[in-house]
Amino acid sequence: MATSLIGRQLALHLQKNLWLGAPGCRYVSKAAAKAEVEFDYDGPSMKTTVPGPRSQLFVLLLNFVFSQNVGAVNFFCNYEESRGNYLVDVDGNRMLDVYTQISSIPIGYNHPALLKLMTNPNNLSTFVNRPALGILPPENFPDKLTESLLSIAPSGMSRVQTMACGSCSNENAYKAMFIWYRNKERGQSGPSAEDISSCMVNQGPGCPDLSILSFTGAFHGRTLGCLATTHSKVIHKLDVPSFDWPIAPFPRLQYPLEEFSRENAQEEARCLEEVEDLIVKWRQKGKPVAGIVIEPIQAEGGDNHASADFFIRLRRIAAKHGCAFHVDEVQTGGGCTGKFWAHEHWGSDDPADIVSFSKKLLTGGYYHKEPYRIFNTWMGDPSKNLFLCEVLNVIRRENLLEEVARSGKALINGLYELQAQYPGLLSRARGQGTFCAIDVRDDATRDKILVKTRDKAAAPICDHELQKGFNTSSPLSV
Amino acid sequence: MATSLIGRQLALHLQKNLWLGAPGCRYVSKAAAKAEVEFDYDGPSMKTTVPGPRSQLFVLLLNFVFSQNVGAVNFFCNYEESRGNYLVDVDGNRMLDVYTQISSIPIGYNHPALLKLMTNPNNLSTFVNRPALGILPPENFPDKLTESLLSIAPSGMSRVQTMACGSCSNENAYKAMFIWYRNKERGQSGPSAEDISSCMVNQGPGCPDLSILSFTGAFHGRTLGCLATTHSKVIHKLDVPSFDWPIAPFPRLQYPLEEFSRENAQEEARCLEEVEDLIVKWRQKGKPVAGIVIEPIQAEGGDNHASADFFIRLRRIAAKHGCAFHVDEVQTGGGCTGKFWAHEHWGSDDPADIVSFSKKLLTGGYYHKEPYRIFNTWMGDPSKNLFLCEVLNVIRRENLLEEVARSGKALINGLYELQAQYPGLLSRARGQGTFCAIDVRDDATRDKILVKTRDKAAAPICDHELQKGFNTSSPLSV
Repeated sequence: MATSLIGRQLALHLQKNLWLGAPGCRYVSKAAAKAEVEFDYDGPSMKTTVPGPRSQLFVLLLNFVFSQNVGAVNFFCNYEESRGNYLVDVDGNRMLDVYTQISSIPIGYNHPALLKLMTNPNNLSTFVNRPALGILPPENFPDKLTESLLSIAPSGMSRVQTMACGSCSNENAYKAMFIWYRNKERGQSGPSAEDISSCMVNQGPGCPDLSILSFTGAFHGRTLGCLATTHSKVIHKLDVPSFDWPIAPFPRLQYPLEEFSRENAQEEARCLEEVEDLIVKWRQKGKPVAGIVIEPIQAEGGDNHASADFFIRLRRIAAKHGCAFHVDEVQTGGGCTGKFWAHEHWGSDDPADIVSFSKKLLTGGYYHKEPYRIFNTWMGDPSKNLFLCEVLNVIRRENLLEEVARSGKALINGLYELQAQYPGLLSRARGQGTFCAIDVRDDATRDKILVKTRDKAAAPICDHELQKGFNTSSPLSV
Repeated sequence: MATSLIGRQLALHLQKNLWLGAPGCRYVSKAAAKAEVEFDYDGPSMKTTVPGPRSQLFVLLLNFVFSQNVGAVNFFCNYEESRGNYLVDVDGNRMLDVYTQISSIPIGYNHPALLKLMTNPNNLSTFVNRPALGILPPENFPDKLTESLLSIAPSGMSRVQTMACGSCSNENAYKAMFIWYRNKERGQSGPSAEDISSCMVNQGPGCPDLSILSFTGAFHGRTLGCLATTHSKVIHKLDVPSFDWPIAPFPRLQYPLEEFSRENAQEEARCLEEVEDLIVKWRQKGKPVAGIVIEPIQAEGGDNHASADFFIRLRRIAAKHGCAFHVDEVQTGGGCTGKFWAHEHWGSDDPADIVSFSKKLLTGGYYHKEPYRIFNTWMGDPSKNLFLCEVLNVIRRENLLEEVARSGKALINGLYELQAQYPGLLSRARGQGTFCAIDVRDDATRDKILVKTRDKAAAPICDHELQKGFNTSSPLSV
């Protein structure tokens, strides 16, 4: 690859360390500042290279003594000492963490509100008695659902189904779309005798040859159904059997957007045309498209954005062809774009038929419009709902969505300035809220910048007040 | 169906309420009795029919006010008031619960050891900071793994990968088998350029046409990969696209076993022959079998057992044809058969290449022999591992596996007597440990017995001491 993506954590680090003068940088909300005083650190502090000697020792231990797979381990963490935006490793290195466990820690480490929740004796039972939620829900289930997931339901949606993780959420959302599609085809009549006998041996018409349309560069998870719609990296897909499902091009926008508005409109139109062609082609193939799945911002495939108009027209195409429209907000949901759901930026009253979530929502799941035959043992975990209630309280009380919008603006302005300053190195600065990215010339340069930026924190490099101001303004993970 | 399965909960209820004289019934271990005094109830106590008026109200509320799917809800529970083997509902009904949240509560409700763990401030951080375990494990990860999952590793296995639920465990175990199979095929050479380009668009050879061989009546989960190997009920499979993978017959044994030893040996030989035929047939079809997956006792498909000899010969067939052998212990693992893993009853030093688990282990996951490219955001949840450590301590301290073996014997003897007493109603009593079942003549009779047995607890029906004795002797869920 000629260019490569710079991680969002790096973008924020760069912004903080190299560029300090953009408007909005000094803004700190009173509430956020108050929360920080209670539990946050002053700034990063590096004591060793990373991974440090203790981390390396733990890796050796896990690998050779316990024979465990450690291929992807970065370093070992001291979660007890981690606070707010700062992750502390076992060597005492304290790093500004804007990647937050693959974007799954919504309001920082050891948040006082969550610690307090843990010490409330009324909550004990929820942790030690995990129910089979689908058959034996706890007494407080309607209340907790109202307080948590129903209070942030996307426009036009009032039903929600919790799940244990992002992949399970998407797998079950796909099943819901298949069931919906077949119910629609059958009309009032129930399944035929042939449906019933054939499905038990994996054959049609009971197991129909339906498909889900996905996009190049998409990431929707790694279980077999999800993986058939994931097209971001070879390592995810290699050697795993898949389905012959259609894959449409995701728009490849040119930056800066204002200079390429005509070209980008043409690119989006081309992609939408291809979507319609694929729907027709797969119907003719005998594998009709039951649903279209898309991320509002492609997160794992290189931070790819498209216009609100693109998504609204795509949703119309889905409706026109009788396909369900599934917006996968596993990565984008939870506030990092400055709105609770990234699809809210489209300004549509009826954005989707299904919206799935996980990560920063702490529980997986999906919103939908009709009930389906979806079931498993746990159907989520009410103890995660309990945390989510408190996370939502903090987001509201401290106006964190506004904070994300403000700090996101500072961040993207900083990235614009940086790419103007280093045009040979950086390009395609883009983002929404704090969900920002910039491309670096090549992988080696990217890696060099990453390490240099992290190690810079070993010495005092900038005014602590400014740094503090910036960090506090983006307490939501990006 | 002419006959239908009686739930294990009913078997235990029947045994307790109708039959009280079998040897072993009075056995109560000192440790178990001590634990019970601390936190268990004396016996069941029914105040209303089930679901009671408050449960019905909650269902209406959830359905009509919150538009949620309530199709499968039995009743609402008061988990705070539930203790040990007794589940209390929102109407104050206290029921002996031997089904325990689809077999996922290993040592009873609100166990004092687990409550104590929750109040230890050293554990707080593990609950509020859920890590991306594959890249940033916590400091105590090697220790906790040794204390929990590695301490109960199946024979010949030292590697374990945690996952969030049973379906994810099996999905990733299947992926591990596919990757292993393709690595074996490729030998020393890495993936070809064609492998790499084809996999990104769901095509072979990168996404190879490999298959997993499963059995009629099997249940391995409901996500798309798992569902292709599940063949227990129409409702799970209908309307969901699947893979053309081979399905072998699971032996249908005749009972009592001692009367049909020749017929049963023939039946098992027939099934094994069919397995070999299918492996050859699917290889010729161009869809080679990468792995065989089987439950040691088919749990969801009607409590179907096979002999140790059957499993050992099946494992040999897998090895002979170069297929991985995956034993799915999601339902059977955790002690309910009287051993920690049901496959231990086979007496083999090398029972499997992969063993998956979830439910009573509180965390999902699988044991395996080689490292693979398996990854996702959470890779499990260390807070569940923390509970598992304590559950294992209780199982060891209170000799619960011995208790299961003893009470299982009492239970199966009771079922034998019952079917001798009611030959027109009951048949095929079978089981291992407390994992027991009996068939009832028809669905209507089964349902009638279920309700009658539950409602009997409204009046004092048997000696409380005896009842207590029996309950305490099976604290592991069945």
